[in-house]
Amino acid sequence: MYSAQLHGPDRMQDAFPISTTGRWLKAPEGFIGPASVARVAEEARRGRRDFIRSAFAAALAGGTAAAAHAQSNPVPAAGGDPNILDLPEHSRGLGKPVAADGYGKPSQYEGNVQRRQSPGLTQTAQSSVSFAPLQSLFGIVTPNGLHFERHHQGWWDIDPSKHRLMLNGSDARLLKTPMVFTMDELMRLPSVSRFHFIECGANTGMEWGNVAVPTVQYTHGMLSCCEFTGVQLRTLLELAGADFKRGRFVLAEGADGSSMTRTIPMELVERGEVLVAYGCNGEMLRPENGYPLRLVVPGVQGVSWVKYLRRLEVGDRPYGTKDETLHYVDLMPDGKHRQYTSIQECKSVVTTPSGGQVLLDRGFYNITGLAWSGRGKIKRVDVSVDGGRNWRSARLQAPVMDKCLTRFNLDWVWDGKPAIVQSRAIDDTGYVQPTYRQLRAVRGSRSIYHNNAIQSWLVTESGEVRNVQLS
Amino acid sequence: MYSAQLHGPDRMQDAFPISTTGRWLKAPEGFIGPASVARVAEEARRGRRDFIRSAFAAALAGGTAAAAHAQSNPVPAAGGDPNILDLPEHSRGLGKPVAADGYGKPSQYEGNVQRRQSPGLTQTAQSSVSFAPLQSLFGIVTPNGLHFERHHQGWWDIDPSKHRLMLNGSDARLLKTPMVFTMDELMRLPSVSRFHFIECGANTGMEWGNVAVPTVQYTHGMLSCCEFTGVQLRTLLELAGADFKRGRFVLAEGADGSSMTRTIPMELVERGEVLVAYGCNGEMLRPENGYPLRLVVPGVQGVSWVKYLRRLEVGDRPYGTKDETLHYVDLMPDGKHRQYTSIQECKSVVTTPSGGQVLLDRGFYNITGLAWSGRGKIKRVDVSVDGGRNWRSARLQAPVMDKCLTRFNLDWVWDGKPAIVQSRAIDDTGYVQPTYRQLRAVRGSRSIYHNNAIQSWLVTESGEVRNVQLS
Repeated sequence: MYSAQLHGPDRMQDAFPISTTGRWLKAPEGFIGPASVARVAEEARRGRRDFIRSAFAAALAGGTAAAAHAQSNPVPAAGGDPNILDLPEHSRGLGKPVAADGYGKPSQYEGNVQRRQSPGLTQTAQSSVSFAPLQSLFGIVTPNGLHFERHHQGWWDIDPSKHRLMLNGSDARLLKTPMVFTMDELMRLPSVSRFHFIECGANTGMEWGNVAVPTVQYTHGMLSCCEFTGVQLRTLLELAGADFKRGRFVLAEGADGSSMTRTIPMELVERGEVLVAYGCNGEMLRPENGYPLRLVVPGVQGVSWVKYLRRLEVGDRPYGTKDETLHYVDLMPDGKHRQYTSIQECKSVVTTPSGGQVLLDRGFYNITGLAWSGRGKIKRVDVSVDGGRNWRSARLQAPVMDKCLTRFNLDWVWDGKPAIVQSRAIDDTGYVQPTYRQLRAVRGSRSIYHNNAIQSWLVTESGEVRNVQLS
Repeated sequence: MYSAQLHGPDRMQDAFPISTTGRWLKAPEGFIGPASVARVAEEARRGRRDFIRSAFAAALAGGTAAAAHAQSNPVPAAGGDPNILDLPEHSRGLGKPVAADGYGKPSQYEGNVQRRQSPGLTQTAQSSVSFAPLQSLFGIVTPNGLHFERHHQGWWDIDPSKHRLMLNGSDARLLKTPMVFTMDELMRLPSVSRFHFIECGANTGMEWGNVAVPTVQYTHGMLSCCEFTGVQLRTLLELAGADFKRGRFVLAEGADGSSMTRTIPMELVERGEVLVAYGCNGEMLRPENGYPLRLVVPGVQGVSWVKYLRRLEVGDRPYGTKDETLHYVDLMPDGKHRQYTSIQECKSVVTTPSGGQVLLDRGFYNITGLAWSGRGKIKRVDVSVDGGRNWRSARLQAPVMDKCLTRFNLDWVWDGKPAIVQSRAIDDTGYVQPTYRQLRAVRGSRSIYHNNAIQSWLVTESGEVRNVQLS
């Protein structure tokens, strides 16, 4: 989170970089081992004791104001009474001026909060993934600078004044008036803004066989949540005179070199849920997430949220494109593939404590995490600290929104003994997030996509947190 | 919004830079005058006609796929059939790799979407304001990089590992156990996340006398809205054994050189609304907005949301500090000042169309804007396009949250005649946003703070939008 030593990428020796960031802890340098944990814990204890002693000494000696100043930077005055402390620089001088650059950046102390690529996962960095640092995020909004990325042929910063969106039918009867929109024209149309999660269908895909990656950034970080703004696709199709009775499918096509094409069921469009979106968290989409235009298909896996959207075609049958027949299919135990399993089922994960973090002391902690469902709203999240024997219901943070992340929190007093922390989400259809045993009984263990099993984090006696799977 | 010509600051000749950014329009270079408006409109008309002709010619000649490619960049192939178009570069080659820098940035085409300082408003840039570009924002979330700034002595990037928060009482009976928290300790405590607006009490302050600034960025841009995460102040005071019966006020003190101190009524704390916050829109607070810790006081003017928070003291009477007795007071017509008028009353503003934007054509537009109330939720927003003679109710974007921005939208067909666009918000207490006439009847016109009057935008026959006040 904010350890000054940890600017820039910090990497494990093995195939995956580790994010050592934790909410409440001082992250050690390099890989987390028993020795470094003990050292960091001792430093933290000594630091706190020293600080409290000097702060309260100052409070007694110099009164409240001096004590308050001392909080910020308890450095004894040079050569003076050690109980009278110097003011830190930021309480003395002029700070930096307003609007230095017009668009602000995070603190220098947050340099280790990054989206990170997973080396070795794909052969090129143009067809790869960067994962959002879930262990360092709060609430439900993912800042645009940390939104996960998945590219099929790299990303582009397309000139929006030259970008166009075309609507047509696979035959002339399915759409009366083919239309071409400029961005200016789209942005004049009735606008809606909605909070939704977006999750790659392959999120948690590395965990099908067994424990593969150490941190929640890599197990669940192909997940983000934003306020999207755009035009309802239904509005555009009505303008163009689409035949909603015969045209039961829409093909969405992207303008980048991968020519991503996906079939969208007209049913989702008719509900008004599918957006042709230009805004994300208050500003224009970022280039790596489809600037200037992407499809938003709430509840459906990210690959259908076509980026750099240039064309929408109304058809009367599924299109069977490469990215829905060869890729993004589910290999079943009998060797067959399931296609068109696009809805992201109900899922949750504890983000703190999570793999790579360290609990420095026994005592009170706020267990926190995220829950979501592609079928609707989250109804309840249960949390276990004993590997699923006992469960308590977590507090859900309002507002609980449709097809949107829901933040949950639960009080926990850690007694210093090993613990296995899990969360289990239930959505408003009554669906309960499965265990690995339940998921594998149906799906086997050779899939890539659509792993929504319960995640387990082992807290060891030393306070280290590790990714484990219960048999 | 996205005109390539307009990267970086673009400034008027007078005291205030103008933001020429508009949602659907090509922003002209420099100041908006009748000549440049006509030129831009003609370019836009010609460009669209040419594009549609070439795109559909290609569709007829080369089939759907070629036409779709043509949308993105309708450049005729060199020396070839003008109906067969080259693919744009981004549809041919490899794009940029994933996670190039770990923390993403906006598109190069969005360089004119900036927070901007108002030259001449204050004598130094360390004690100044930058305004959020409301005319370019969507939905309700303000991206952290565009959150408005107000500094009293410049901003700092404080090392969070050295930052402390102290709790004490003005006498020992008001708080049993004075406490000092590290950031690590605060972040272990029960956490809540909530969406709230923050508005400077001086927002719209330049408009008391008459029209002072040209754009909504400068009339209303000391306004932002974020998802804040932190600990309820009530929780901390309970931990420290505060006396909630006798201790009816809390003094909040910042660590920067201005030593900002403000009195917070205990009533707000008891409701659980006041947060000691470290998170903002999913990540840590930005340095210019109080990193690593600020107070969140929903519904109350921004100055009370003390940044760089280092101390909270429970007391039994208001503290009468400099920034609540000499500043942030309301000069009334009889020459007296009102103090402790901290709640931001119900208010709204149309952000598109707004001053500095240009409507290039008659026809359909989506009127959009923001409404908010420091007393609760927005119940209704009415919009007039004839200076307040007739009103229609706008669509409110769900979820409508407590003490939070609410986005409203309304369909409008502009007939090309002059129009005066206004919005009027009503909150769930029944309070109706006043006209300037109503506001001045009570408050006069010599105030700085707490101007919540109805804003009027004049759309002229040429499509230019100007800030006006109705007498």
